[in-house]
Amino acid sequence: MKILFVGDVYGRTGREMIEQYLPKLKSKYQPAATIVNAENAAHGKGLTKKIYQKLLEVGADMLTMGNHTWDNREIFEFIDEAKQLVRPANFPAGTPGSGLRYIELPHGVKVAVINIQGRVFLPSLDDPFRIVRQLVDEAHKRTPIIFVDVHAETTSEKLALGWYLDGSVSAVIGTHTHVQTADERIFPKGTAYLTDVGMTGPYNGIIGVQRAAVTKRFLTSMPVRFESEDGPGQLGAVLIQVDESTGKSSKIDRLLINEDHLFFE
Amino acid sequence: MKILFVGDVYGRTGREMIEQYLPKLKSKYQPAATIVNAENAAHGKGLTKKIYQKLLEVGADMLTMGNHTWDNREIFEFIDEAKQLVRPANFPAGTPGSGLRYIELPHGVKVAVINIQGRVFLPSLDDPFRIVRQLVDEAHKRTPIIFVDVHAETTSEKLALGWYLDGSVSAVIGTHTHVQTADERIFPKGTAYLTDVGMTGPYNGIIGVQRAAVTKRFLTSMPVRFESEDGPGQLGAVLIQVDESTGKSSKIDRLLINEDHLFFE
Amino acid sequence: MKILFVGDVYGRTGREMIEQYLPKLKSKYQPAATIVNAENAAHGKGLTKKIYQKLLEVGADMLTMGNHTWDNREIFEFIDEAKQLVRPANFPAGTPGSGLRYIELPHGVKVAVINIQGRVFLPSLDDPFRIVRQLVDEAHKRTPIIFVDVHAETTSEKLALGWYLDGSVSAVIGTHTHVQTADERIFPKGTAYLTDVGMTGPYNGIIGVQRAAVTKRFLTSMPVRFESEDGPGQLGAVLIQVDESTGKSSKIDRLLINEDHLFFE
Amino acid sequence: MKILFVGDVYGRTGREMIEQYLPKLKSKYQPAATIVNAENAAHGKGLTKKIYQKLLEVGADMLTMGNHTWDNREIFEFIDEAKQLVRPANFPAGTPGSGLRYIELPHGVKVAVINIQGRVFLPSLDDPFRIVRQLVDEAHKRTPIIFVDVHAETTSEKLALGWYLDGSVSAVIGTHTHVQTADERIFPKGTAYLTDVGMTGPYNGIIGVQRAAVTKRFLTSMPVRFESEDGPGQLGAVLIQVDESTGKSSKIDRLLINEDHLFFE
Ligand SMILES: [Fe+2]
Ligand SMILES: [Fe+2]
Ligand SMILES: [Fe+2]
Ligand SMILES: [Fe+2]
Ligand SMILES: [Fe+2]
Ligand SMILES: [Fe+2]
Ligand SMILES: [Fe+2]
Ligand SMILES: [Fe+2]
Repeated sequence: MKILFVGDVYGRTGREMIEQYLPKLKSKYQPAATIVNAENAAHGKGLTKKIYQKLLEVGADMLTMGNHTWDNREIFEFIDEAKQLVRPANFPAGTPGSGLRYIELPHGVKVAVINIQGRVFLPSLDDPFRIVRQLVDEAHKRTPIIFVDVHAETTSEKLALGWYLDGSVSAVIGTHTHVQTADERIFPKGTAYLTDVGMTGPYNGIIGVQRAAVTKRFLTSMPVRFESEDGPGQLGAVLIQVDESTGKSSKIDRLLINEDHLFFE
Repeated sequence: MKILFVGDVYGRTGREMIEQYLPKLKSKYQPAATIVNAENAAHGKGLTKKIYQKLLEVGADMLTMGNHTWDNREIFEFIDEAKQLVRPANFPAGTPGSGLRYIELPHGVKVAVINIQGRVFLPSLDDPFRIVRQLVDEAHKRTPIIFVDVHAETTSEKLALGWYLDGSVSAVIGTHTHVQTADERIFPKGTAYLTDVGMTGPYNGIIGVQRAAVTKRFLTSMPVRFESEDGPGQLGAVLIQVDESTGKSSKIDRLLINEDHLFFE
Repeated sequence: MKILFVGDVYGRTGREMIEQYLPKLKSKYQPAATIVNAENAAHGKGLTKKIYQKLLEVGADMLTMGNHTWDNREIFEFIDEAKQLVRPANFPAGTPGSGLRYIELPHGVKVAVINIQGRVFLPSLDDPFRIVRQLVDEAHKRTPIIFVDVHAETTSEKLALGWYLDGSVSAVIGTHTHVQTADERIFPKGTAYLTDVGMTGPYNGIIGVQRAAVTKRFLTSMPVRFESEDGPGQLGAVLIQVDESTGKSSKIDRLLINEDHLFFE
Repeated sequence: MKILFVGDVYGRTGREMIEQYLPKLKSKYQPAATIVNAENAAHGKGLTKKIYQKLLEVGADMLTMGNHTWDNREIFEFIDEAKQLVRPANFPAGTPGSGLRYIELPHGVKVAVINIQGRVFLPSLDDPFRIVRQLVDEAHKRTPIIFVDVHAETTSEKLALGWYLDGSVSAVIGTHTHVQTADERIFPKGTAYLTDVGMTGPYNGIIGVQRAAVTKRFLTSMPVRFESEDGPGQLGAVLIQVDESTGKSSKIDRLLINEDHLFFE
C-alpha cells in the first residue's frame, strides 16, 4: 500500500494547490491513505472548521498540525470532535485534541498517524522522544502501519527522531521548515525518512510569507505584518510504499510541483 | 562556465569522500571553478593548515567556512595568508581572514567568492544583508561572476538573502544544516539558488555526529562527547551554469553521492 | 549634581505611579536630570504621543526605550521630532529617532543620554559594544556627563557593557528584566552601575503582565492574551551622584516603592 | 526557625568566601538549616566529591545545583550516594541523583529541599511547573517546611513559579543569573520569594568569569577560554524566617558581602 503525505498547506494559494492537484495525485498514485499537514492552512496561521472540512472533501484522510495549531481560535471549538486531525502529541496532558489517530481503510486495515513537535528553537513541550515512543507502543497494539509527522526546526532533532524510530514505524517525515529536503531514504530497519517534505503554498514567497515584508523585517528589525505572498504556487509531498502486513517501507519518493517542476498526470 | 560547490566536509569520512570523488566530479563536469565548504573538515570542528592544503591539492580552488571557523586554533596561524579561503564576512571589523576572495581563472576571468553567516539561532554578528551588499558592490568592480555561500540555520533567512541578491550575484547557496534541500532554482533575475547543499561526511550519523551520542544527548540532556559517526560516506554538491560575461546563471543541478545514490563517471 | 532614572513604566498602573511619585521624588532628591524608561508605557507595548507628553509634563527630562519601541505604531509619527526621547542606538542605520540626545540643564550643562540594546536572547541588532563606544566618543565632545540605559536580557551582557564603559561614562544602568537588582556600585574608574533598575507598574503581576495569563501560558504552551495585572503598583528607580566637571559618579542609591517599601517624603 | 541559603558558589574565590563567612553567618543568625547552591563550585563548572564534602564540613546541610550539574564528570561517581545534594528535579526520569531531599533537624523536624530548572533560554527539560507540583505534594506528606531553589534565566519564569507555589511552600528562591535581585517579599499566602540570590565568587568578574575573556568574546564572537576572575570575592545569600508548624514564612532578608558591603559579626 502507498501513503501520500503533503506538506504544510499555506493560506489560499496552498489550498488552491491542494484542490487542483490532490485529486490528480490520488488518481495517478492511488495511495491507500492521504495525510496533509494543515497548520498554516488558514491565512498561514492555524485552521478553521470550514477549511478542515474542505481539505477532507478534496481527498485528505487525516490532517497533521504543528506549532501553529492554536493560532486560529476556532480550533478550540472543533478539535475534540475532529477525528481526522492530529496535533503535536507532546503538548502537556489535558491539551484539547489528540496526537495519535487512525485512518480506517476499507479493507479493515488501520494506519496510525502521529504528530510530534521538536523542542530545539521551538517552545518548550514535553519530551518528544519519550512521548512518541509511548504512542508508537500504543499504536502497535492496533496496527503495524504507523506514520509520524515530525514538526521541528533543526535537521539534527529530526534525524535523531528518525533514527530513534527506525524499525518501529513505517515513516518519519519532517515538516515546519517549508523547504523540501533531498535526503529521502529507507533506514536499515525499514523506516522511510525525509527531513522535510516542503510547503504547499506560494512559490515566490519566503516560506509562504510576502518577500517584501520578510526582507523589511530583516533589514530594519521592526515589526511587520506577515501576509501570504501572491503569485504561483508549489506543492511538496512524499509517497511511501509500505508493506501492509509488516509496516516496513520499501520505497520513498519526493514530489514537488511548481512552475519549474510541472506535474504530468 | 560551470561552478562546482561541495558542502560541509565533515571529518575524516568527509575528507575521504572528497579525495575519492572530487577528481571524478571535476573530470566528468569540467567546472571552471571548484569551491568547498570546509568548516567541519578537522574532526568536525574547523580546519588545520594540513587539511587546507590537502583540499586544494585534490581540486578545490577556494574554501568557505561558517560558525565553526575558529574551532581549531591552528586557523589563526595561517588564515591571513590563506588566499584560497573565505570566512563569514560579517564577523566584526578586525577579524583575521577575509569574507571575499577571488578565484583567478586561466583565461583572466575572476570568480568572486563570498561567505556570509546568518544570525537567526546563531551567534550575533554584523548584519549579513548590509555586509553582503557591500561586498557584492565591491566585487562587481572586478567581475560579474559572484558566488555566495550563505551559512545559516533557518530557511527563511537563507531564502530572504537569496531573493535579496537576485540579479546581483551568480549564485546563493546555503550551508550549515548538513541536509541537502530540493529547492534548487534560478530566480527571475538570474541568480541560482539552493537553501542547503548538504554535508560531505558520514552517511549514517546525525549531521555527521555519532548517532549514539546525539540520541543520548536528546534523551538525557546531559553533556556528551561528539565524535564523527563511522561507516559509509555521502557527498553533497551543486553544479551551476554561469554566463561568463553577464554573471547570470542558467542552470543549477544538485549532486548527491551515497550508498543510495551511486556516482556514475 | 544628581541624576534620577526610573525603570520601565508599564501601562496605566505604571503611569499612575509616575504621576503620583515622580513629583515627590524630585522634590525630595532634587535631581538635575530625570530620565524615565517608557518602552512599556502604552498598555505594556510602546509609547503614544499623548503618553510621551504626559511623562514629560510630570517631570521627565528624557525618555528611553527598548525592544518594545515600535510596538505602538503611533511612534513613527512623532519619534523624529521627539527631542526628549532616545531609542536603542544600535538599530540599523536609517532607523527613525536617535539613540543619543542631550538634556540641557538651566546653567548650560548638558547630560548625554544613550540607549543601547543587548543581543543575547533578543533580536539581532548592530554590535552594542561598538555603537555605544562611538556614541560615547561623540558625546564626550559636548559633555563629560553621560548616562547609558542598557536594555538587555542577561546579566553577563549588561555587566560586560558596564565594565567596558567604566571610566568613559557617568552611569550604566540596565532595564528590560523588570526586576530590580541589588548590585549597585561605583566601578573603579568612576562609572555608576546597576544591572537592572526594575519596573514601574503592577506590583503583583509577572513583570507587569496578569499572573493568570502568564501561568496559563507556561502550563499549556498555548497563545494567551497578555494584559496588565490589576491592583497596587511599584516604582523602581536609581539616584546617581555625578561630579559635574568630570562626569565621574561618587554614589548610587536604589529606590523601590511598593506596598512593602513605602515612600517617605 | 531560620533557613539560610547561599547563592552559586563559583570557583576557588567562591569556596574561600564560603569558608570564611559561612561559619560567621551561622554564628550570627543561627539558621536551623543551611543550603548552598554549588553548581559552579569546581572551577565554575560543576562539583567534585572533595568540594561536596568541604562545603558540608564548613556548614552546609544541603547543596543545590543547576544547568552546570554534569560539567564535572566526577559527579556521576557520587551523586546517587550524596544524600545532601539535590539536582534539578525536572531532568528526565532515570537521571542520577534526586531533585528532592530532606534536611533532618536535631529535634525531628524535616526541611524538604527541591531544585527545579527553568526552560526559557535553557536546555529542554521536563515541565518545571508540573514536576515541582508533584514534588511539593510528595514533600507535604512529610513536612510543611519546603524550600525551592528555582534555577532559571528569566525573571518571568521565576516569578511565575514563585506565584504558582505561593501558599504551598515556605520559600522560592532563584539562582543562575549570579546577580542578586532586590525584590524579596512574602507573597500573600506566606511564601518567601526572591528572583535571584546572587553569586558567591569573584566580585570583579562577569558573573564570575574573567572580564577580559568575556569582553573579548562579545567584541570578536570568537571562542575564548573562560577562567575565574581574580581578586576580591562576594557572597550572596538570603535568610528566611519560617514558622515550623505551618511552613509559612514571615520574613525574608537579603545578605550581600563584598568590598562595598562589609560583614559585621
Ligand atoms: Fe508550517
Ligand atoms: Fe511550523
Ligand atoms: Fe557545517
Ligand atoms: Fe555550521
Ligand atoms: Fe520593559
Ligand atoms: Fe524590554
Ligand atoms: Fe550558577
Ligand atoms: Fe546556572
